[in-house]
Amino acid sequence: MRLALGISYNGQGYEGWQSQLSGRTVQDKLEAALFSFTRQKVSTLCAGRTDAGVHGLMQVVHFDTALQRPINAWVRGVNAFLPDDIAVQWSKEMPDSFHCRGSATGRRYVYALLESPVRPSVESGRVGWVFRPLDLEAMQKAAELLVGEHDFSSFRASACQALSPVKTLRRLEISRRGRYWRFEFEANAFLHHMIRNLMGSLLQVGQGFQPPQWIAEVLAARSRDAAAPTFSPNGLYFLGPVYDAHWGLPEKTAAYDWLP
Amino acid sequence: MRLALGISYNGQGYEGWQSQLSGRTVQDKLEAALFSFTRQKVSTLCAGRTDAGVHGLMQVVHFDTALQRPINAWVRGVNAFLPDDIAVQWSKEMPDSFHCRGSATGRRYVYALLESPVRPSVESGRVGWVFRPLDLEAMQKAAELLVGEHDFSSFRASACQALSPVKTLRRLEISRRGRYWRFEFEANAFLHHMIRNLMGSLLQVGQGFQPPQWIAEVLAARSRDAAAPTFSPNGLYFLGPVYDAHWGLPEKTAAYDWLP
Repeated sequence: MRLALGISYNGQGYEGWQSQLSGRTVQDKLEAALFSFTRQKVSTLCAGRTDAGVHGLMQVVHFDTALQRPINAWVRGVNAFLPDDIAVQWSKEMPDSFHCRGSATGRRYVYALLESPVRPSVESGRVGWVFRPLDLEAMQKAAELLVGEHDFSSFRASACQALSPVKTLRRLEISRRGRYWRFEFEANAFLHHMIRNLMGSLLQVGQGFQPPQWIAEVLAARSRDAAAPTFSPNGLYFLGPVYDAHWGLPEKTAAYDWLP
Repeated sequence: MRLALGISYNGQGYEGWQSQLSGRTVQDKLEAALFSFTRQKVSTLCAGRTDAGVHGLMQVVHFDTALQRPINAWVRGVNAFLPDDIAVQWSKEMPDSFHCRGSATGRRYVYALLESPVRPSVESGRVGWVFRPLDLEAMQKAAELLVGEHDFSSFRASACQALSPVKTLRRLEISRRGRYWRFEFEANAFLHHMIRNLMGSLLQVGQGFQPPQWIAEVLAARSRDAAAPTFSPNGLYFLGPVYDAHWGLPEKTAAYDWLP
């Protein structure tokens, strides 16, 4: 039987998603909880690995198991063994043709940012920060240049293992509530550090250090050196993978409404 | 010279506001940072002590000092010595007649609550939690019974040192955004644990365990035994004291917009 779980977590205390010898990753905590619940070793695959400090609103994992448990027990039972900052949101039995990564037709992220003369405190670790006022119109012009199919080599980490630097950025919407900005991204897939690198360059434009058209030059350069430095992981939230509706999986979890 | 500072903090990692031998309180961290900045012992008074786990959006403190520093240096300089989850938001020179507690004509708090079948995770420690759906209309009827001048003995912690249990609750507004509820309170002053005790009883009504009119019976009983247990500190935020406009102090900080 193939099971899919939706997982949300605060990435502040973890060394990213993927299992490490240290055991201090979200995957390690999840698999330890699955072991406590099932008394069997369970290995999970995920829809999108997140870096250290990055949060997940709806990571999706799948695994195969012969165990028969009421489907809701996979939520309540596993949550009883997870730390406070990680929770299973839902569980669903899936056909063997479902693959949490392979079946995803896209990924969605939000970057949450505080614009304030003073650094974050109450929301420390949950938001990025700029102290200069941002120009929405300039950033929206830059965002229009990024949407579509492009070679995103200028926004790609050197360690990136993707086969191709060409990705389709379907959506980049920028909005604000008070002093908090929200940057929402959707693409078929993202390169390693792509959103943090895009944020770094968008904020060069937003703060007035570069004109919007500079973004087109950075894209055309196809060189990491052309873009701004990688921005902080603190405000980055993996909203989750995008699946065809026929799989019947939830699109959002409650915490989506927590973001600005 | 009398200085006032506005302070925001995430209370999760601290044993409340007030200084303790352990040194693990917000006041201890602030006074240690003030010492590092000034090389002098600085003792602060605050507008409203918060319990362990309760957050502050705009705590106000004052102290007297002979040191002459540019007024903004008290923000940037002290923040350099504070932990990531505490920050000075503003500083202002005040006349000696100003007293952060005595000059306050009221206090404002928000309680942020997640209504979801699954416990908090991304926002762990930042919100209270109920897993049953809440009835807004019932809670609003109950809230109307609480607004005004009342003897709040039923909602008073046994350790409370207030001279009188009679307080004026000026405002209790309930709203929601998605799965997150916001309860905003303003009173001339609050008794110890009063908001967490009010939340416990409001949620009895919201979950349908008691009718709205029960709140009037609880108030009339003037006995802690009549009310529901004290609710979690996790979702409680001190928005700050209320001062007359002539003092010229900020009413809000950026983090106000972070709440649901």
